[in-house]
Amino acid sequence: MEAAEQTDPTEPPLPLLPPLVDHHCHGVVRSELGSAAFEAFLTESDAPAALGTTFFDSQLGFAVRRWCPPLLGLEPHCPPAHYLARRRELGAREVARRLLSATGISEFLVDTGLPGNLTTPQELALAAGGTAHEIVRLEQLAERIADTSLTADDFLTGVADGIREAARTAAGFKSVAAYRYGLDFEPDPPGPGAVHTAAERWLARRGQGGTAAARVTDPVLLRHLLWSAAYTGLPLQLHTGFGDPDLRLDRCDPLALTDFVRAVRPTGCTLILLHGYPYHRGAAYLAAVFPHVYADVGLALSHTGARAGAVLAEMLELAPFGKVLFSTDAYGLPELYVVGARLFREALTGLLTHWVTEGAWSRRDARRVAALLGADNARRVYGLGTPAPRAG
Amino acid sequence: MEAAEQTDPTEPPLPLLPPLVDHHCHGVVRSELGSAAFEAFLTESDAPAALGTTFFDSQLGFAVRRWCPPLLGLEPHCPPAHYLARRRELGAREVARRLLSATGISEFLVDTGLPGNLTTPQELALAAGGTAHEIVRLEQLAERIADTSLTADDFLTGVADGIREAARTAAGFKSVAAYRYGLDFEPDPPGPGAVHTAAERWLARRGQGGTAAARVTDPVLLRHLLWSAAYTGLPLQLHTGFGDPDLRLDRCDPLALTDFVRAVRPTGCTLILLHGYPYHRGAAYLAAVFPHVYADVGLALSHTGARAGAVLAEMLELAPFGKVLFSTDAYGLPELYVVGARLFREALTGLLTHWVTEGAWSRRDARRVAALLGADNARRVYGLGTPAPRAG
Amino acid sequence: MEAAEQTDPTEPPLPLLPPLVDHHCHGVVRSELGSAAFEAFLTESDAPAALGTTFFDSQLGFAVRRWCPPLLGLEPHCPPAHYLARRRELGAREVARRLLSATGISEFLVDTGLPGNLTTPQELALAAGGTAHEIVRLEQLAERIADTSLTADDFLTGVADGIREAARTAAGFKSVAAYRYGLDFEPDPPGPGAVHTAAERWLARRGQGGTAAARVTDPVLLRHLLWSAAYTGLPLQLHTGFGDPDLRLDRCDPLALTDFVRAVRPTGCTLILLHGYPYHRGAAYLAAVFPHVYADVGLALSHTGARAGAVLAEMLELAPFGKVLFSTDAYGLPELYVVGARLFREALTGLLTHWVTEGAWSRRDARRVAALLGADNARRVYGLGTPAPRAG
Repeated sequence: MEAAEQTDPTEPPLPLLPPLVDHHCHGVVRSELGSAAFEAFLTESDAPAALGTTFFDSQLGFAVRRWCPPLLGLEPHCPPAHYLARRRELGAREVARRLLSATGISEFLVDTGLPGNLTTPQELALAAGGTAHEIVRLEQLAERIADTSLTADDFLTGVADGIREAARTAAGFKSVAAYRYGLDFEPDPPGPGAVHTAAERWLARRGQGGTAAARVTDPVLLRHLLWSAAYTGLPLQLHTGFGDPDLRLDRCDPLALTDFVRAVRPTGCTLILLHGYPYHRGAAYLAAVFPHVYADVGLALSHTGARAGAVLAEMLELAPFGKVLFSTDAYGLPELYVVGARLFREALTGLLTHWVTEGAWSRRDARRVAALLGADNARRVYGLGTPAPRAG
Repeated sequence: MEAAEQTDPTEPPLPLLPPLVDHHCHGVVRSELGSAAFEAFLTESDAPAALGTTFFDSQLGFAVRRWCPPLLGLEPHCPPAHYLARRRELGAREVARRLLSATGISEFLVDTGLPGNLTTPQELALAAGGTAHEIVRLEQLAERIADTSLTADDFLTGVADGIREAARTAAGFKSVAAYRYGLDFEPDPPGPGAVHTAAERWLARRGQGGTAAARVTDPVLLRHLLWSAAYTGLPLQLHTGFGDPDLRLDRCDPLALTDFVRAVRPTGCTLILLHGYPYHRGAAYLAAVFPHVYADVGLALSHTGARAGAVLAEMLELAPFGKVLFSTDAYGLPELYVVGARLFREALTGLLTHWVTEGAWSRRDARRVAALLGADNARRVYGLGTPAPRAG
Repeated sequence: MEAAEQTDPTEPPLPLLPPLVDHHCHGVVRSELGSAAFEAFLTESDAPAALGTTFFDSQLGFAVRRWCPPLLGLEPHCPPAHYLARRRELGAREVARRLLSATGISEFLVDTGLPGNLTTPQELALAAGGTAHEIVRLEQLAERIADTSLTADDFLTGVADGIREAARTAAGFKSVAAYRYGLDFEPDPPGPGAVHTAAERWLARRGQGGTAAARVTDPVLLRHLLWSAAYTGLPLQLHTGFGDPDLRLDRCDPLALTDFVRAVRPTGCTLILLHGYPYHRGAAYLAAVFPHVYADVGLALSHTGARAGAVLAEMLELAPFGKVLFSTDAYGLPELYVVGARLFREALTGLLTHWVTEGAWSRRDARRVAALLGADNARRVYGLGTPAPRAG
């Protein structure tokens, strides 16, 4: 039966992906965006493009111009100026509605820790015709609590309460320790004394003002947040690999987490390594050898555009197929949801079709693995439950 | 002649690989294997698969299901349960015979340093219809000698004798210093005093019992073993890159060996860097710039399955073609011999066909390089001599 | 219009590359080369090929045998001995003329800091029918000045004068700090006292003779050179990634430069990261997030031959298309100009054709990006001006 199925020419094309679960994303900007503001969302850079260049001239820029104009009634690859004019014509709200509803994403796990005039998880889900869950960003939680804490004791109690409370409703936690310090932090939970001292020091520095001091960057506090989250038993997302130039990329290799991965294993906490690029093969290795580690393809597919298939293929070398999760890591622009979802579908379809055609995989396995990556793994890891059956 | 040959449509397909020399492999389990035990050999993890997942859902698992069922009379990609049932039906011995004799491997260089109820090199070769040579694992040799050594002097004399004796019959040595410490050890040979002190310390710790203490992990002793082997002039295999979670992958980058590679060069010792993934491009670089360094594709092909061609291609970017060796690194399951050999043949054939078709390589060169990688490089490096001509 | 253009079968094939600007290259040997000397230019190794192997058996060797024999009237892939015989028959000067004029390179930015009986930039350009500009190698400039400096003050004044003078005519500077120390140097400019002390120490060591002492390897002096060049505002090329075994490849990851990249940003200096392989994805990342950073594909394409397309594709994942520059890094052999230029054209054409065919890129964008990479980015970065229109 299996073999016959593989060669049956009447089989529908691969992979018939089910509605996707986007396990890591952010809100989109509610207000209208000028040209420069739009372009700034196409890059991880913190500066305008170099003189004579534009961030539209990138794999991500080309991917946006490929997939999005048709959803707004334009030709694919139309010039950026045409696209932006059409976008202004329709208005941010209508653009978001049109784009989000075309993604094929049914569930959104939204990291709410980014600044800006962004849609809430509920607004996002409503525009997309899906449902939403919240992912709580640890560092932002700590900073919000620090804003109203007079003493280290206040702060630490607030953090404990805040994490406990968040764990009641959130689908998981996220850490950006990669940005704030690097992933080469000490693996073990810091002792209470060290945490208290670090909290006092940070609050004192904060009292002197300045935006840098407002952010939690002390590795002792970052570790305290990670371990506090781990003890809740909720899945913990960790930024790894590339991102904006706040981070030093060579200190964000997921393999730098190896000792932390080992240390945290007895807590039962599940770790999801986000992005990973260009160290995604290392992330896949950790997912292969540690039962509690998962890997995500997020940002790496959107930013590599026409190369998304190649990057996804590298992730699928060592990572067991029950360990890889889809996300868009979309932020600010609804376009990034479209691009993330389309690139994932197209990249995965391309790989699976190729492997089935050459006989390396069976068609049945290909369909099953597509469902795992696109939704089922995330459902299992975050305990989302089965989606309601769809009419039609 | 060359040009005509390249376009001659009557040419046989590439690459007509000769019988392979598997320069790095292990015995297979003699006894029957249950489902969980079988699955454990499909991963480098030291734990069962995460809840809701299985190691069969991996590139290696799919490769086993592609190549092995037909050798036991089943359809490719049949469900794991069917395959395991058929395996039990036939018995471990008959399964080993059927699978091993279908690999096209004529010579096996067997690392005998792994535990378990495993076939000897001779048994393995007999089942496969080939011949076998032994590779002596340095750390296991040291541990065996330590078991019967009362003093550091006993131990060090025993090691010197053991290595000298092994060098008389073995085809080469192997080190797993990567697992025991990492590859970032000091490059130079340790002085006799330091070695003696380290030996005393280790024997004392061993005397206190415990499985961890039984293993040699002291970098001074590991270096002493490496240098002792180097002085014999026999080829020395070094584990690099991924493996089980005993190791920290980021400390197994073969480039960490650079200073050792330089230091050992005057001894005339040949180094063969095993696996290397995901740092195999670095291993290829070392093979390119140091005359005494070779690189192996082993484990990296088996575990990446449908992606073996892509990984092999990366290895063949910088590595001169006289410097790359085939191996399966098969261990425990005869299936891993089948998969390692088939993936290598298919990956190499695919690459060579592609390069010849686009005119980048000549057909004659492609055939020659296939023979180098599959057998001739190993014959030259290990001094195996030419194989006897085959009848028929 | 755009869409129609994409599917018009009468469109000329991609990418119709304009004449190339080779922004990083070296002179070719003026004298006749024996077989061993020729082969030595096919590798970054500092030793002859291992017994039983040859550097012709490499991707670079095969690429030379693919592209160069037809330019000298032979079949592609003819045996090395035939090619070398034909080369001797024609003479080095005629070979250089034939090969260089077939590269399609119109402008050469020549690093003049390598030893040997090499053509000057003007001779090179004349043979190729193009124009030349000079890139001044900082370490060689310092060593030349040290040769005639009696005191540290003499030396430091000489360096300041030399860099200022070079900046009047050179197109840019180049540093090989990667070879001399590694890229993990302190990011900040060293203070005058530290520089003076380091200069005194180096001159004293030089006074004692020896070839090792003659080279500038002190990180304080290397940083002084880098910062002195940065302050001129001219583009600064930095060797990163693989090269000869003088360097430790794992200390040449371009990401090790991250803090230097940040520190030097306010000077307005443009940094061009050369080669980068196998860390070219990291170089592309830096080019993506820092406006003043560019990345080059040079050596990585020539040495990976049939794999050049795969390597270029990895570079074009994160790097904005206004940030990637073509070079050959050819040195010694005119063959390396041919190979560098052909592989670049073929690799780029292959990628763009593929991306246009699958709809990921528009044909118009593909043509525009090809022009950026092949020439326009280099023209803008080095201020080369528009080329004169060509007759015919």
